[in-house]
Amino acid sequence: MSNELPLGYHYSTVYAGIRKVQKDDLSLIFSEPAANAAAVFTKNLVAAAPVVLSKASLKSSKGKVRALVINAGNANCATRTGMKVAETTAKAVAKLAKCAANEVLPSSTGVIGVELDVKKITSSLPALFARMSPDRFGDVARAIMTTDLVQKTAQANLQLSKGKIRIAGMTKGSGMIQPNMATTLGYVMTDAKIGANDLKAILARATELSYNRLTVDGDTSTNDTVVLLANGASGVKPTGEELKLVAEAITGVMKNLAAQIARDGEGAKKLVRVLVSGAKSEADANLIGRAIANSPLVKTAVAGSDPNWGRILCAAGYSGAKFDPAKVDIYLQGKRVCKAGLAAPFDEGKLKAKLDDKDVTIDLRIAGNGKGEAEFWTCDFTEGYIEINGSYRT
Amino acid sequence: MSNELPLGYHYSTVYAGIRKVQKDDLSLIFSEPAANAAAVFTKNLVAAAPVVLSKASLKSSKGKVRALVINAGNANCATRTGMKVAETTAKAVAKLAKCAANEVLPSSTGVIGVELDVKKITSSLPALFARMSPDRFGDVARAIMTTDLVQKTAQANLQLSKGKIRIAGMTKGSGMIQPNMATTLGYVMTDAKIGANDLKAILARATELSYNRLTVDGDTSTNDTVVLLANGASGVKPTGEELKLVAEAITGVMKNLAAQIARDGEGAKKLVRVLVSGAKSEADANLIGRAIANSPLVKTAVAGSDPNWGRILCAAGYSGAKFDPAKVDIYLQGKRVCKAGLAAPFDEGKLKAKLDDKDVTIDLRIAGNGKGEAEFWTCDFTEGYIEINGSYRT
Repeated sequence: MSNELPLGYHYSTVYAGIRKVQKDDLSLIFSEPAANAAAVFTKNLVAAAPVVLSKASLKSSKGKVRALVINAGNANCATRTGMKVAETTAKAVAKLAKCAANEVLPSSTGVIGVELDVKKITSSLPALFARMSPDRFGDVARAIMTTDLVQKTAQANLQLSKGKIRIAGMTKGSGMIQPNMATTLGYVMTDAKIGANDLKAILARATELSYNRLTVDGDTSTNDTVVLLANGASGVKPTGEELKLVAEAITGVMKNLAAQIARDGEGAKKLVRVLVSGAKSEADANLIGRAIANSPLVKTAVAGSDPNWGRILCAAGYSGAKFDPAKVDIYLQGKRVCKAGLAAPFDEGKLKAKLDDKDVTIDLRIAGNGKGEAEFWTCDFTEGYIEINGSYRT
Repeated sequence: MSNELPLGYHYSTVYAGIRKVQKDDLSLIFSEPAANAAAVFTKNLVAAAPVVLSKASLKSSKGKVRALVINAGNANCATRTGMKVAETTAKAVAKLAKCAANEVLPSSTGVIGVELDVKKITSSLPALFARMSPDRFGDVARAIMTTDLVQKTAQANLQLSKGKIRIAGMTKGSGMIQPNMATTLGYVMTDAKIGANDLKAILARATELSYNRLTVDGDTSTNDTVVLLANGASGVKPTGEELKLVAEAITGVMKNLAAQIARDGEGAKKLVRVLVSGAKSEADANLIGRAIANSPLVKTAVAGSDPNWGRILCAAGYSGAKFDPAKVDIYLQGKRVCKAGLAAPFDEGKLKAKLDDKDVTIDLRIAGNGKGEAEFWTCDFTEGYIEINGSYRT
């Protein structure tokens, strides 16, 4: 895998003692040369210090980034020293990376409201830099995990007219996940040459179609951050037409990452894909898809392999989208269970068996000429979610 | 208790074979004389047939009601024969009650999308009428239950200048509960003389402060109905000033019923009261209260007696209300855990013990001059919720 990774990126991790379990908790992604960057952040009013600092740095550096530094185990949010910790971290990294402090973006994930001892970070930085390697991409993907059970990475390569470009992304997130992001961190690197404005537009649309179509429990966190870096190390600058292909490939990587988060939802046993079509607009399709994907009743029914389509229709009904319930067909695992808003005959036993699959598709189609479509990802809702979240902090 | 019940109401239940378990599933509330009535219904686009019919009947009868007929075990929603079943039921009840069909309001609760055999209802009506008694209030409260574990009733009596008036309410609901109602049925009877327009206004505000401040899982059902009846059997017509007292008493009964629903939330072990004060407006306080009360992360933390105030602040942050997080104090069980948006010192062990109580209060206060207040009720989120809903239909 490593020989297909984007050129010019170096990765490292160490255990800085931030989380109790001895598992690497401090990560670095370093770009040589400097990368153009775009980022999207949580819309929560309560934003963690690293989010506030990263936003300001991206603005003042005009989207130039040399290093990302990420800690797991503490969200550095709602604490007295939050901003000081984020700033000290960025400055210390900048010193070792020989760049400006605003070219370093910090991220944090973990518990909220507990002071983060910055010395744990600063004293670990020399080791972090010493262990940098282009091969340690997977180590970072593991070190940013919190309640995640599996690391989440995706890659794509494109042969363009002037040569090959590479895209690689990693993400973390498992609970507290809802459209407009979540305790989600995502980092997507490419070695294509892409200007900062183009990057921004690509990331905005790709996020809309990936992370913003993802929900685990309807909660939106204080620390969500997705960063897209393009360092041009391939020497390949996509033409105007090729840029669309690159945008598609980046979107594909991000959709792949988002679906992986849903599959690894806290306590989840199944990945649930919710498809909506025939709505009056994309906005309406989003409302319907989100309501279904967020409904604890739908998600517990999926957990129990129960073809309870009434709950799906009901969630669509309260979504806020306008549609005629008598025009709705619903398919579960490809089998029509509701036709024109009413029960369609199906073999209960067979469908229940199909719903035992690890991949469940809920497909709601509204008859007519509506062009609004949406695809959402979520997971089933099991006892495991409760176990994980009942005592996360303690 | 029965001698304190509102005068002029008769109650009955039978087992009509609609639900599998042999437990009374068909109920009647009959008023002699005819009552003035107001009702609020689900806002779900997918409304069950009895909701559609009841709305139309209330309109054409100008709020005159003689009988309520309620079945549990089948929602009579999203079925081919839904409207026919509701109409046939109302007509058959009207014949026995010797009133017009539009003076009978049907309600249903149970599974969606399964045809309801109306013969089970019509063939049971003679027995239902034969067993009517002013004393069987509690029997109806039990027969309308679905996943409810306990029956839910509340009463209030008022001594007014011209005599005593009585109020009694019953409700069902346990899951699929969210502001703007839920698979909630509620019936509140009084023997005061109150005009239809006054009743409507009283019910609207009382619902806003009770059922609409209740959330179990964020789902809103297709069948929600709350009916308020005033039959004047006491002979007492409240004066203009006294009408406010009556409205308050009705609101009190409905708040009591709403809190009972939260306490009996599916799988719940604890009743959670969420208080918000200091918001810019009541609307903002509602947004904040609802976000906290709806957050699975907050509710699982309560289940685990985990004083995880960061999740509470976080939910407020994504609620959509505008406020300064640095002005927020949060109290759990009366103990301040967050001061000015930051961690406040508290004894973790002691507070955890306090959070083991069956009644948990989350109190979020925003410093300043904001007059917006709200009180919400919800429950903790436990493994039991998943168990109940994973196989409800089958």
